[in-house]
Amino acid sequence: MPKQVDHEERRRRIADAVCALIDAQGLEGATLRDVATRADVSMGAVQRCFRNKEEMLRFALGHIGARVTERARGRLVAGPAQSAASTVGHVVGEVALLREEHRAEARIWLAFLAAAAVNPALAADLRAGYTDLEGLLARLVAEAAPALDPRREARTLLALADGLTGHVLIGHRTTAEAEELLHAHLAGLWREH
Amino acid sequence: MPKQVDHEERRRRIADAVCALIDAQGLEGATLRDVATRADVSMGAVQRCFRNKEEMLRFALGHIGARVTERARGRLVAGPAQSAASTVGHVVGEVALLREEHRAEARIWLAFLAAAAVNPALAADLRAGYTDLEGLLARLVAEAAPALDPRREARTLLALADGLTGHVLIGHRTTAEAEELLHAHLAGLWREH
Repeated sequence: MPKQVDHEERRRRIADAVCALIDAQGLEGATLRDVATRADVSMGAVQRCFRNKEEMLRFALGHIGARVTERARGRLVAGPAQSAASTVGHVVGEVALLREEHRAEARIWLAFLAAAAVNPALAADLRAGYTDLEGLLARLVAEAAPALDPRREARTLLALADGLTGHVLIGHRTTAEAEELLHAHLAGLWREH
Repeated sequence: MPKQVDHEERRRRIADAVCALIDAQGLEGATLRDVATRADVSMGAVQRCFRNKEEMLRFALGHIGARVTERARGRLVAGPAQSAASTVGHVVGEVALLREEHRAEARIWLAFLAAAAVNPALAADLRAGYTDLEGLLARLVAEAAPALDPRREARTLLALADGLTGHVLIGHRTTAEAEELLHAHLAGLWREH
C-alpha cells in the first residue's frame, strides 16, 4: 500500500515542521501556511493530513511524546548491572528535557502545556502521557526503595522535573544546576529509606 | 496630578483586561482590539499606555506577580507563634497557585512562562520574580532547618510548586493531591534534619 505509506511519511514530515515552528516562535508560529512552506508541501496537503489545527498540534505532541518515552524506555535496558535507583535517575533525566540537545523538545512541551490549560483535547493527550510515565517511575521507585510510597514519589519526581524544565527554558537555572537539584532530590529519597 | 493618576488607573484596568483574556484564551487572546473592548477604552488609549504588545504583557505579568508576592509576604506576618517550617508551607502554598480561586492567575503564569521561553524580555521579568521568591524561601528554610542547604531546598521547592501548578491546570492532579504532595515533600525535609 504505497499510498498509505506516503500519507504517514507526509504526516511525520508535517509534524516535524510544526515542531520546528513552535520551537522558534511558540504555538502561534504554527500557521497552516508556514507549516506547508516548511514541510515543502501544499497547504492542501496539510489540510488533507489533518482536519484542523488542533489535530495537527495533537499529532505533533504525540510525535514528541513518543520520542521522549522511547528514550526513557531505552534507559530501562541499558544494562542488567544497573541498580533500580540509578535507573530512576536516568529515566527522570530523559523526561526532564534539561540538556541543550533537547531544548527544542522542551520548548514545544511547554507550549503544549500552556495550550492544554485552555484546551481539553490537548490536556487529555498530555495526561495520558504523564500517566504512562508515572506508572513507569512508580514501578522503578518500588523496586529501588520498597519502603517509599512509589506513586507519591513518582508524582513528585515528574512535577519537579517539569518545574525544572521550565526554569531552564527561561534561563533561571542552568542545565547543570537543574541536574544537580534532581540528583540531590533522588539522593535524599534513597538515603531516607 | 489627576492626569498621572488616571494614567496609572487606566494601565491597571487594561492589565486586568489582558489577564482576563489570557485566562480565557491564552496569550493569543490578548489582541489590542479585544483588550480595548474589554477594558472599555479606545484602542488609541491602549496604545498610549503601552508602546507595544510586549510592554502590555510585561505590565500584566508584573501585576500578577505583585499579587502573588503580596500574598506570600502576608503569610510571613500571620502570627509570631507560627514556626518557620509552617511559614515555608504557607508561602509555598501561595506561590503554587493550586487553589481554584487562583486558577486564572495560574493559567496566566503558565502562558507567560511558555512565552518567556521564546522571548528574552519576558524571561528576564520572570527570573527577577523567581529570584525574589527563592531568596524569601531560602531565608525561611535556613531558619526552620539550619542543617539543610537553604538555597538548594528553595530552588527545589519553587520548581516542584511550578510543576504541580502545571499538572493541576491540565487536570492531571487535583488541588488536594498537589497540596498533599507539597506537604509530604516538606514533611520529608523537616523529618530528615
